[in-house]
Amino acid sequence: MKKITVGIIGAGRIGKLHVDNLLSIPEIQIKSVSDVVVNHLQEWASSKGISVLTDNYKDLLTDPEIDAVFICSPTNTHAQIIKEAARAKKHIFCEKPVSFSVEETIEALKVVEEEGVKLQVGFNRRFDPNFKKVRELVQQGEVGQPHILKITSRDPEPPSVEYVRSSGGLFMDMMIHDFDMARYVMNSEVVEVSARGAVLVDPAIGEAGDVDTAIVTLTFANGALGVIDNSRQAVYGYDQRVEVFGAKGAATADNCRPTTVEVSTAEGVSKDKPLYFFLERYTQAYIEEVTQFAKALLENQEVICCGNDGLQAERIAKAAKESFVTGRPVKIEHIEQAEDKVVLN
Amino acid sequence: MKKITVGIIGAGRIGKLHVDNLLSIPEIQIKSVSDVVVNHLQEWASSKGISVLTDNYKDLLTDPEIDAVFICSPTNTHAQIIKEAARAKKHIFCEKPVSFSVEETIEALKVVEEEGVKLQVGFNRRFDPNFKKVRELVQQGEVGQPHILKITSRDPEPPSVEYVRSSGGLFMDMMIHDFDMARYVMNSEVVEVSARGAVLVDPAIGEAGDVDTAIVTLTFANGALGVIDNSRQAVYGYDQRVEVFGAKGAATADNCRPTTVEVSTAEGVSKDKPLYFFLERYTQAYIEEVTQFAKALLENQEVICCGNDGLQAERIAKAAKESFVTGRPVKIEHIEQAEDKVVLN
Amino acid sequence: MKKITVGIIGAGRIGKLHVDNLLSIPEIQIKSVSDVVVNHLQEWASSKGISVLTDNYKDLLTDPEIDAVFICSPTNTHAQIIKEAARAKKHIFCEKPVSFSVEETIEALKVVEEEGVKLQVGFNRRFDPNFKKVRELVQQGEVGQPHILKITSRDPEPPSVEYVRSSGGLFMDMMIHDFDMARYVMNSEVVEVSARGAVLVDPAIGEAGDVDTAIVTLTFANGALGVIDNSRQAVYGYDQRVEVFGAKGAATADNCRPTTVEVSTAEGVSKDKPLYFFLERYTQAYIEEVTQFAKALLENQEVICCGNDGLQAERIAKAAKESFVTGRPVKIEHIEQAEDKVVLN
Amino acid sequence: MKKITVGIIGAGRIGKLHVDNLLSIPEIQIKSVSDVVVNHLQEWASSKGISVLTDNYKDLLTDPEIDAVFICSPTNTHAQIIKEAARAKKHIFCEKPVSFSVEETIEALKVVEEEGVKLQVGFNRRFDPNFKKVRELVQQGEVGQPHILKITSRDPEPPSVEYVRSSGGLFMDMMIHDFDMARYVMNSEVVEVSARGAVLVDPAIGEAGDVDTAIVTLTFANGALGVIDNSRQAVYGYDQRVEVFGAKGAATADNCRPTTVEVSTAEGVSKDKPLYFFLERYTQAYIEEVTQFAKALLENQEVICCGNDGLQAERIAKAAKESFVTGRPVKIEHIEQAEDKVVLN
Repeated sequence: MKKITVGIIGAGRIGKLHVDNLLSIPEIQIKSVSDVVVNHLQEWASSKGISVLTDNYKDLLTDPEIDAVFICSPTNTHAQIIKEAARAKKHIFCEKPVSFSVEETIEALKVVEEEGVKLQVGFNRRFDPNFKKVRELVQQGEVGQPHILKITSRDPEPPSVEYVRSSGGLFMDMMIHDFDMARYVMNSEVVEVSARGAVLVDPAIGEAGDVDTAIVTLTFANGALGVIDNSRQAVYGYDQRVEVFGAKGAATADNCRPTTVEVSTAEGVSKDKPLYFFLERYTQAYIEEVTQFAKALLENQEVICCGNDGLQAERIAKAAKESFVTGRPVKIEHIEQAEDKVVLN
Repeated sequence: MKKITVGIIGAGRIGKLHVDNLLSIPEIQIKSVSDVVVNHLQEWASSKGISVLTDNYKDLLTDPEIDAVFICSPTNTHAQIIKEAARAKKHIFCEKPVSFSVEETIEALKVVEEEGVKLQVGFNRRFDPNFKKVRELVQQGEVGQPHILKITSRDPEPPSVEYVRSSGGLFMDMMIHDFDMARYVMNSEVVEVSARGAVLVDPAIGEAGDVDTAIVTLTFANGALGVIDNSRQAVYGYDQRVEVFGAKGAATADNCRPTTVEVSTAEGVSKDKPLYFFLERYTQAYIEEVTQFAKALLENQEVICCGNDGLQAERIAKAAKESFVTGRPVKIEHIEQAEDKVVLN
Repeated sequence: MKKITVGIIGAGRIGKLHVDNLLSIPEIQIKSVSDVVVNHLQEWASSKGISVLTDNYKDLLTDPEIDAVFICSPTNTHAQIIKEAARAKKHIFCEKPVSFSVEETIEALKVVEEEGVKLQVGFNRRFDPNFKKVRELVQQGEVGQPHILKITSRDPEPPSVEYVRSSGGLFMDMMIHDFDMARYVMNSEVVEVSARGAVLVDPAIGEAGDVDTAIVTLTFANGALGVIDNSRQAVYGYDQRVEVFGAKGAATADNCRPTTVEVSTAEGVSKDKPLYFFLERYTQAYIEEVTQFAKALLENQEVICCGNDGLQAERIAKAAKESFVTGRPVKIEHIEQAEDKVVLN
Repeated sequence: MKKITVGIIGAGRIGKLHVDNLLSIPEIQIKSVSDVVVNHLQEWASSKGISVLTDNYKDLLTDPEIDAVFICSPTNTHAQIIKEAARAKKHIFCEKPVSFSVEETIEALKVVEEEGVKLQVGFNRRFDPNFKKVRELVQQGEVGQPHILKITSRDPEPPSVEYVRSSGGLFMDMMIHDFDMARYVMNSEVVEVSARGAVLVDPAIGEAGDVDTAIVTLTFANGALGVIDNSRQAVYGYDQRVEVFGAKGAATADNCRPTTVEVSTAEGVSKDKPLYFFLERYTQAYIEEVTQFAKALLENQEVICCGNDGLQAERIAKAAKESFVTGRPVKIEHIEQAEDKVVLN
């Protein structure tokens, strides 16, 4: 059996999650893990059968045995590591967003293209079976020409204010997933956005310069309209819904719940709240995204979520932020684009 | 416009309900109402534009202007009044059950047949749009050859013990609706029943000689099996569900609720309880059954729920009671039947 | 019993619907109907027991027996008739919108106020039990401080292009219902709107100068955000949903369907489409709105949907149209308002 | 870390499934696999890291390194292997049913008890989160004293007639799962059953001496009533529902579906069929049952589904078969029981 040897850069929550999921793929061998501090990771690494643990990610890039790296370090390091990894001829799985700066992202993607390595960006929701089915229904024409897209995306609780400060803001940190989902299910580019935001959940988020509630309308290249609403706090759990409405009908993906049990009493009829947060809701999607990445490498196929997907979501996020600040619609074409507009990967 | 003049025999809850519903049918004129005591009904009758109020139902039968009577008096008077009304050439709408005695019912139906008048029995649930649709799907072959019927029928609260004592018992008073529903949606006769009953809601019901909880299995002439469960008390409201499962699929009618509103909070996700009881759930069905009765008279068509339907439901109820008492299955053919087994009406 | 004598101005579809619903209210007597042409209405009027049929609505205003008029004539006549009716001391039920011009509406409301008559505007959806429950839940604080409002409102099929031409446009003709719903369920004024529109259903609508698909975001006085999406054609039926999301949870009103029947076959699991259109979906709401109007007159209470409600919805619609044309957000305060901003009624 | 070394007896579909699930439990090491023919299993075994492959299960029982065995061989070998494994002091996970003969099962359990080893029976559905939640709600008193249990259990397609012939019949092969579920969610013993069966799916099943459709009513020690319906063929997929109705309400577990996507078109509104069959529906339950077995061994706790659970389900199945044949209710106490009625494990 052909095998892929991988290294993990950054062993925080998401890095460890990828390790666990990669362990279930027979064709993958995890050889190395790097993090800025590694002492506390010794036991964890050995329990996972990881032989190399280093505080220098460059050790992974210079290791000729390593075929691919997973970049799970902080966002402000992504672009630089992508470039170095690409130049070292490693295939790359990079967490979203590629960077906080569209320019940096473009630069990184250019190197990826030059070096001819594969780059998959971690928009895990593309691998959720519900949203995947909505996309398929749209592509198969089941709802006809799309007219309206609606995405609801609300977290169960806000992150810490420290996180908010370094997050790049709601549009870049949270809604970027929805911008990617919009492109994914509609199979059409966003050409204009108009954003409204508010601080309704926690004043401290506002003091940190961000919003916690937002509604963004989208105009697509195919003429359709769309709307995304975000909240940092839905007390009933992770609210993740997508609807595409078109000339022949609508496809709607509802929330997922732990059980199907319904309880009827004198007080009313109740069912489970949605699955709590992304780790619960997207368990299978996280497994699927690394499985598909492995498959793309083994079979030399295109990845399902490429560098250009990362870039376009960032451009939309940047436009949304600008629209929120100026109070006016912003065309995506006014946001920098990779020169030649080829689909980068 | 052709008009039908009707008289109402018995102005209790159900009699008054029929009056209100008949008032909305332009082709119907309510001329007379009889009850054993009428003084307290004067104001009500005049507000409804009813010109004759009498304590003798025979006054209605001798009135040549009256085309049809609604028999809403206590069950033990039904058979006798049916016979007298039929002999007076009045068309008849009779509340369920036709009588507590299959022999009496057969005798009454014989007179109806001899006189050639129409008789509709008040199995209102046949006119519920949900169950009607299940029947239509079965008849159209959408679920294929029927294999299994399931009926759940639970009241929100038990009647008074006095009512229980004179009710004829759960099988004759409550489950008789479900026996009719079974024949209606399956479009096949019940040939055998096996009943289990228990006193779980209120010991006083047991002391009155009845059960408050029961499960009855049915075997149909077409080979299918069925099951009905009844409870005198579902604290969450009137639970009325029907499912037909067959070779090509299943059709399921769920409960109806006041609104479609769903509330999601930190405690859970809740929706409305089922509509409280028969007056709420079957509002439209009660209107539809008298509308269809009027139509059958005006257009000289067959009624949707005829005397034989009343008879067969009673035979099944009697068999169920016998099965409950003996602990053994009982074949319906062992219960008396009208001699010639023609469909009586 | 106190009685109210009413006259109907305009016997088109909605006028006739009101007649039927009013006939079921014992305290109401319909004396007169006016329309521009009346010959074809003779039989209909007599079948409804209406004694006066005239081609001049002024006949109703000069009739001292008439307490209240229902203005069901074309929109461009509403404001004028309101003023005349108010000066004739008639109470008024007026179909939506009050006029196509905010100035005219303000002028009409001023006369209503001066004359001290009651004016109810025909936003029938306020009387739908589902939306009423959402409002109550919001008012009772069940969802906490509101953060996001979402309204989906899609018609099953577009009106004729002739209708579109004289309709005042999608924002004034169709979305005005949703603007009123937004104020109703949120119990807060809209302060700003931002509109996007498109011609996706039928190019002829675009040629008539209108859009058939639109998304409008709203900012409320209480800080909340909202979004409304409209389409002139949902092939699966009348799509009418409302969601209020807040600090303590969410309340969602889903579509209503003819039955609860679910059919499971080898092809899939299916249920009924939403009720077809407004006559089916809002049957009870239309009855309830005239019942509540009658009650407001009989008990001298405030109407549930007053003149100011009509005015505010029009101001939002006007702002939305301006936003669509200019591509920029529009503040409602820039749209004319009644001078003294008292709640007009 | 404490480790458990296991051997698998029988490498058919279910044996291989357990191997895959056991591989995901760090505390488990699979050392050996036996089957009657092993040549074709070489590659599979080595890919799973299994070092010993033998055609004699006794090799596993004599291996002192092996702590526990999984008995996945044909049912008619279960009882014998259980006895031998117990005498070899191996803990045992045995697929259901323990045997086709209540006497043999009792004998096997006696040896298990004497030797003091743990025995878990493979009623996988106990580990389904939906049914587990129903049981918890019942135990916590959320539905009050239970009155009615309803279980629907229908396979998507019938097994081969060969399988049917050696299956022990529908009551022992298929409904036995539901008998166990009945005891599990009601937390009460079944005291009487009454069975009805029919051949409606495939005459060949009838010719093989079995039924393909059945309804069984149950009476519980706590006074409650219950009903189970089974079909060998639900064309829309694996139909697995449970409802417990009681004095304070009802808890209902519905089917699970691949996605939450709903599609609305001019033809209707459709959603996914239930997950196809047990491998899809009970994926997690199969993992959970072996995880819990491992936990019971590691922490020396009681297993969740013990030998007595296997025995009681068999007794009910035997009674159901007898009831079906005789047409009469059968009391479970008339079926053999382990002498001392202690809870065997």
